[in-house]
Order: sequence, then structure tokens, then C-alpha cells
Amino acid sequence: MDLLKIKIIGFDADDTLWVNEPYYRETENEFFNLLKDYGSSDYLSQVLLEVELNNIETYGFGIKAFILSLIETALKVSGNKLDSGLIGKIIALGKAQITRQNEILPETETVLKRLSGKYRLIVATKGDLLDQERKLKNSGLLPYFHHIEVMSNKKAVNYRQLLTHLDILPEEFLMVGNSLKSDVVPVLELGGNAIHVPFHTTWIYEDIPAAELPGSRFRKVDKISDILEIL
Amino acid sequence: MDLLKIKIIGFDADDTLWVNEPYYRETENEFFNLLKDYGSSDYLSQVLLEVELNNIETYGFGIKAFILSLIETALKVSGNKLDSGLIGKIIALGKAQITRQNEILPETETVLKRLSGKYRLIVATKGDLLDQERKLKNSGLLPYFHHIEVMSNKKAVNYRQLLTHLDILPEEFLMVGNSLKSDVVPVLELGGNAIHVPFHTTWIYEDIPAAELPGSRFRKVDKISDILEIL
Repeated sequence: MDLLKIKIIGFDADDTLWVNEPYYRETENEFFNLLKDYGSSDYLSQVLLEVELNNIETYGFGIKAFILSLIETALKVSGNKLDSGLIGKIIALGKAQITRQNEILPETETVLKRLSGKYRLIVATKGDLLDQERKLKNSGLLPYFHHIEVMSNKKAVNYRQLLTHLDILPEEFLMVGNSLKSDVVPVLELGGNAIHVPFHTTWIYEDIPAAELPGSRFRKVDKISDILEIL
Repeated sequence: MDLLKIKIIGFDADDTLWVNEPYYRETENEFFNLLKDYGSSDYLSQVLLEVELNNIETYGFGIKAFILSLIETALKVSGNKLDSGLIGKIIALGKAQITRQNEILPETETVLKRLSGKYRLIVATKGDLLDQERKLKNSGLLPYFHHIEVMSNKKAVNYRQLLTHLDILPEEFLMVGNSLKSDVVPVLELGGNAIHVPFHTTWIYEDIPAAELPGSRFRKVDKISDILEIL
């Protein structure tokens, strides 16, 4: 990691700047409870994951895709014989999650304040455009960022577009995030830098087996404030 | 419109570059048919519009918001006493619309080809991020655009962010689109330029009464190829 070359730092948002995945887990638990007549939480969880993975290409990521997949799962496990009032309750669960205030992770603001003087900071997140903008606005962290990029996916091809758009070379970019799959591996693949800040709860989709990562452009830290010791 | 100053031209996408709104109308007609036991098309259409407008703040624009509003409308008009198989059919209608290929409007490619040599062209659209990216990719028009901006809304504040991000002055920007409300009025308000290319089908939300618009920075044409006579 050639620190002198780094110009722009991209921060993932969900579970990097603020708590997010645990809210999905809570909504899922309420959903499993609504549908307990149709199977155990384990079973419902397995069907939901199948439905979500099948829908990624069609719906993409984010909260609206999630609500639609919850509804589809409910229809599937009930063989289309569901009390339609339950669908109304699922929609209400989804809307409640949308309007929830995401808790900012400790020391995030301190880190952004310190780094924003030295680097250009951006948010690089995937998910639902409106939902991500709303979370960022609610967070009060907006003033620290020069630019917000909501990406439809976070594969190498999407990061390449981002770098072109930012008009910088891969070695001038550092990505900070909680997902090895979405924030670290594709950025390293392009020749960029990445810092992994794990979060305790990870969606199965984001989980990948530990791999050999190029040590020179990669670091792993325990919490976001640790990146100040590197940068 | 000071042509010598214009550096970047923003094109709206839906119903400016390709056909879109008529597909929504077709899906709605199939939806009205599925729910004909619960009321006339006029009645269902009125409830749907109410539900959609109520949901804009929560869901934003685009196809997934539309599918969720169709489901909510079906629950509402049936008093939550719907055969849940119908919900499955509504989801299928939505997915069918997502995978539909949008027909490119006549002469669009010729116009983009001619202008891309003289100006930097971008797409400035609202709606669902993944869905808009997919439509653009399918259209084959991607090579003419320097940058794609999917906006959560198209009000003056959103255009101001766009101009900051593009690093240009309002008078250096020209917006081309079919919606007076979303493509013309907010851009003129900021001091930018706009060309209105009406389309035969407009969502009620986008309809605004004709207003006095500053003639010096505003033009109205009949079809997209007419803008070549101006630029």
C-alpha cells in the first residue's frame, strides 16, 4: 500500500459506517414468526435465501428487493394458500425497516473528520438508491463525502467503471469495507488498495472463504478507528 | 440558449431515448384484468395512483416500487381478502416487465452519434438503479455516454448535486427530456438550458400545467431528431 499515491478513499456504507445487517435479521425473525405455521425458522430461512439468490439478477440488491423476496417466499412455503392479510403485514415490516434510523458505528465520525482533510472521501455502496441516500442523509455524515456512488453491484467491472468515472488509477484508490467479497477482492483484483473491517453479522451472500490476498495492498483491522494508524 | 457555452448534454432515458411508460400502462391493464372482481379499471387505477403517490417517499421511483404498490393496491381493494395466488401473478407481471426489451425511439442513435463528437453526453434518469442500467445496456446506446447518473429524484436540488459532481456551471448544461416537471422546469430554475421532447404517454405524476418558461434557455421540439436543428 503506497500511501503517498492514495488520493481517494471509498467507504462502504452498510455495516461499515452504520449498523445494517442486524436490522435485516430482525425483520427476518419477525417474518419467520408470522409464517411459523409453514415451517421452522431454519426451513423458512433456507427458502428465503434461495428466493433472494434467484432474484438478484432481476431485482438487484437492497430493501425493496428484500421485501419482494419475503412476499415470494411466503407464497412459496404456503403453496399460494396464504391469508392475504399476512402479505399486508410483510409489507408493513418492510416499510418499518425502511424508516428505521441506522445506528452509526463507534468513532466513525472521528475517522471521517480526520481523513477528510488529507484525502478525498467517497461512499461506494450497493443497494437501493433512495434507501442509501436516505440513510446517509440521516447519518449526518454527508458533509465528509465528496461524492456518493450507489452501485448496482460491486464486482471488478463495477469498480473499473467507478475508477474511470473518478478519473484515477487503481493504485490511487483505497476501499474500506466489511465485505471481503464486495469491498476487498474486486478492488485488489484491479490493482487497488483495500482495508477489511469485519462486522459481526454478514449476509451469507457476502461470505467467501478466506483467501490469499496480496499483503502489499491489503490490510485487515478490527474496527474502523484502526485505519487511522495505517493512514 | 448560449450554444457556445454548452459543454454537457443530459438525456433523460425513459420515453426520451426509449419507450417505457406504455409498458407500465400494459402491465396496469393486465393487473386491472386480474382484479376485475374488485372494481372497474377506472376505480382500480384511482386506488393504484393514490397508493403510488403515498409510497413515493418510502419507495422512490421505478419498477420495484411499482410492483410493491400493485400488491398493496390489490390488498386494499379486496379488503385483505384476496386469493394469494393473484399476488403471485402480480409478481410475475412485474418480473415480465423487468425483462422486457425497451424499444428505442426513432433516430435516437443518429442523434447521439452526431452530438457525441461535439459535446459530452450523459444519461440523467430517475428510477431503479439496476433496471435503468439494464435498459441502457440492452439499448446498445451505452458507448455514446460518458457517464450515467441515476438520480433518486429530479428536483432542482438533485440537479444542483449533479452539476456540482460534473463540476460545471448551470449555463454549461443542457437537459433533454420528455417531462416538463422532471427534465425541464428544475433545470431552468437553476439557470440551465432545457429542450422538451414530449412523448404521447405521460404518467399523471409527471403532468404539470403549461407554464411560462424562459424562452431564452428553453426550446420545445416534436421529436428527438429536431434537436439537431438547434445544436
